[in-house]
Amino acid sequence: MIDYTGTYTDQYELSMALVYFKKNRYNEKAVFDYFFRKLPFGGGYAIFAGLDDLLGAIENLRFDNMDISFLKKTGFPDDFLNYLKHFRFTGNLYSCREGELVFPAMPILTVEANLIEAQIIETLLLNILNLQTLVATKASRMKLVAKGGKLVDFGLRRAHGPGGYYASRAAMIGGFDATSNVRAGRDYNIPVSGTMAHSFVQSYDDELTAFRDFAQVHPENCVLLVDTYDTLKNGLPNAIKVGKEMQERGERLRAIRLDSGDLAYLAKEVRKRLDAEGLHEVTIAVSNQLDEYVIKSLNEQNAPIDLFGVGTSLVTGKPDAALDGVYKLAHSGGKPRIKLSESLTKITLPHKKQVFRLMNEEGTWAGADIISLAGEDEFETMHHPFEPGKNMFVGDLQKEPLLEPVMENGKRCTGKKSMNEIAAYSSERIEKLSGEFKRFSNPHVYKIGISDKLKSERARLAGTRRS
Amino acid sequence: MIDYTGTYTDQYELSMALVYFKKNRYNEKAVFDYFFRKLPFGGGYAIFAGLDDLLGAIENLRFDNMDISFLKKTGFPDDFLNYLKHFRFTGNLYSCREGELVFPAMPILTVEANLIEAQIIETLLLNILNLQTLVATKASRMKLVAKGGKLVDFGLRRAHGPGGYYASRAAMIGGFDATSNVRAGRDYNIPVSGTMAHSFVQSYDDELTAFRDFAQVHPENCVLLVDTYDTLKNGLPNAIKVGKEMQERGERLRAIRLDSGDLAYLAKEVRKRLDAEGLHEVTIAVSNQLDEYVIKSLNEQNAPIDLFGVGTSLVTGKPDAALDGVYKLAHSGGKPRIKLSESLTKITLPHKKQVFRLMNEEGTWAGADIISLAGEDEFETMHHPFEPGKNMFVGDLQKEPLLEPVMENGKRCTGKKSMNEIAAYSSERIEKLSGEFKRFSNPHVYKIGISDKLKSERARLAGTRRS
Repeated sequence: MIDYTGTYTDQYELSMALVYFKKNRYNEKAVFDYFFRKLPFGGGYAIFAGLDDLLGAIENLRFDNMDISFLKKTGFPDDFLNYLKHFRFTGNLYSCREGELVFPAMPILTVEANLIEAQIIETLLLNILNLQTLVATKASRMKLVAKGGKLVDFGLRRAHGPGGYYASRAAMIGGFDATSNVRAGRDYNIPVSGTMAHSFVQSYDDELTAFRDFAQVHPENCVLLVDTYDTLKNGLPNAIKVGKEMQERGERLRAIRLDSGDLAYLAKEVRKRLDAEGLHEVTIAVSNQLDEYVIKSLNEQNAPIDLFGVGTSLVTGKPDAALDGVYKLAHSGGKPRIKLSESLTKITLPHKKQVFRLMNEEGTWAGADIISLAGEDEFETMHHPFEPGKNMFVGDLQKEPLLEPVMENGKRCTGKKSMNEIAAYSSERIEKLSGEFKRFSNPHVYKIGISDKLKSERARLAGTRRS
Repeated sequence: MIDYTGTYTDQYELSMALVYFKKNRYNEKAVFDYFFRKLPFGGGYAIFAGLDDLLGAIENLRFDNMDISFLKKTGFPDDFLNYLKHFRFTGNLYSCREGELVFPAMPILTVEANLIEAQIIETLLLNILNLQTLVATKASRMKLVAKGGKLVDFGLRRAHGPGGYYASRAAMIGGFDATSNVRAGRDYNIPVSGTMAHSFVQSYDDELTAFRDFAQVHPENCVLLVDTYDTLKNGLPNAIKVGKEMQERGERLRAIRLDSGDLAYLAKEVRKRLDAEGLHEVTIAVSNQLDEYVIKSLNEQNAPIDLFGVGTSLVTGKPDAALDGVYKLAHSGGKPRIKLSESLTKITLPHKKQVFRLMNEEGTWAGADIISLAGEDEFETMHHPFEPGKNMFVGDLQKEPLLEPVMENGKRCTGKKSMNEIAAYSSERIEKLSGEFKRFSNPHVYKIGISDKLKSERARLAGTRRS
């Protein structure tokens, strides 16, 4: 979809790269971590998404001729431009699986590469992962409350330009069933769905003829939008007439769509009248400013809704609108690195690391992950990352490592997963998370701890820096 | 940037198009209006942006081979696919100028084309215009309160994928001065800006050496980020040292950037110490979760800030995250068309229309626009669009028509405007809007009225439909 080129980055990445280049530091190895600090939507978890797109983008990232001439014009010197002409990413990536449940402060993905390459991909990485993780998480919240109802992404018109294309993919990872976005359907192999707008009905002199024409051309997939003039007085009676005509022809009116008014009341009313007319198999689809709270409320009211079409709130991740994912240096030039801050929560974790999900003997999740130095795998205790003195005995728990190599020397080293596989993995992981982490109001806090060694390393480095 | 193809649309556009095709209605002419219902950010105006990108996308829109084979696979019949293979948009567009101040309910852009073409471009049009109008409006709000401070877009990492590319363009239209987004700089001829991240400082054993190396490689554009370890204890003293070394070499430290802590307090402290050291010409840049309210507050506190770097809130249009722009049928098959709703504000305006900005004799804006049928140009009275009985005498006011042809038979018919021209137009228009419409709290409501004729036509059609 996008021709990502080397200039798909922030200017400061190139300004820094120039210094590393001029100071002969371009082969210096560095380790950067991708993580976020705050769970979106006040929820208890997030779903990691965007990895596959990111790997493709990084593998193919080059500075093209237009990039080079633009950078020349803005003052970059020829020797550096010559380096950029031959740029490719040659580093390693370690990552959680796409669809994994992730939590604040834990490294979700680690980049190990020379400084210049690691900096140049920073913006691209954040740009891809922050959006898809945000939207997959939002989608998952809707899935939690949709009960049996199908979820369809209707968001492209309100999405942030082509961000909507990636949002449609992320929605599937979070548990959606289909999208209205044809291009995303084409490229990501997502089921597409869609029937008619109000304009279709308006373009006819009468609603009944509009419905009949539609049914005739789409006998297999006839969904009638009934609120162009008046849902109960016109739309529904006309739809029932067409539904019965289809029945007589041995066809089936698939659904009725409600797009305004009180959806709970209307859905009940529509269901009653459809059933009274023997149109039991006609389902009810609703849309109009839905989000996870509206869907939950509709289901709590036992509104007989079979499909929810969700737009704005899904694809824009409203009201948060962004995940605060960051990319921080943890190691370079053979040394662990740290960034300090007045706020302990903003002090970074040095060294290359691993994250383990902790489980009880039976394999159920313990509701805690531990971040350790890479290579460690025996722990007695894990420490709260920010609150001194708070710790937990973990010596008896099983550990599942979450970061695995996904790119080696600039090439993918794991098979490409299908959308269905990624969505299935995500759904499997959500199943393992117990309910108290999934509720909307004050969800239980999933514990993220750090190992003894990581804790002392952070303290040691902070001490050095502060002195 | 994006290869927009015919499938960059919602599935329902194609489902409807198939019916029009099968029913031999493909040459039936239709008129659709683009407008929104609610001003974003609780503000008093919006800035229309995205037009030039839209015109380019529509002119070049084709169904490529991958589109056609995907649509075949999903069941579209061969005769229709053959039509799509030769698809191009052949209609006319009438639009406000890009950068225009726009208000709820007024047609901002009108599409006049055959039904199929007009439907197929709907999603693309909304996807492009909704984002850019949202972001240009957000940017403009920051410009209003930035006083002399420069505004730089730092948002790509938190933007919605490639939506960030378009957001950078829109930010310039709203009054920003530069972007960190190199690709947007390259393609849209926007000044780019950027210096160093914390990782740059961290990658050195000491901050001073990091600053010195940077100054040496970037003597003309040295901005030092001073909060990696401790702003006042380490960062500032080191920056001052480097600033004086540069001074001695006849160079100039351009700026210091603050990215955490209390920005008002720190900016004052930094300014005082810089001045005490004779570094008067070193400017102060700040970043970290800025939005229009923070910028306003910093300026009210007289914080001596020269540049504001704004990310998330700008490019995501937080907290609204979307503009509710819609695309509604107003005329088709030779007849005016209407959509009804229980809520009067959701009843559409039939017919092809024009919008006039009303001005007093001296040319100052009257704070009102009138929507009329196309071709009308004499009005005594304008009517509130939704509140019966409310009207205003406008017979003595001058009128500036806002909708002008921008595309004829599928080809642009106005010259392409440069970013600077569009931004200058927007700024000129903002100047003409009086202050009470621009304040953040309860801005005065700009009046949008409808003409006598439009009012009676709407009433007539609503009556027919309701009967």
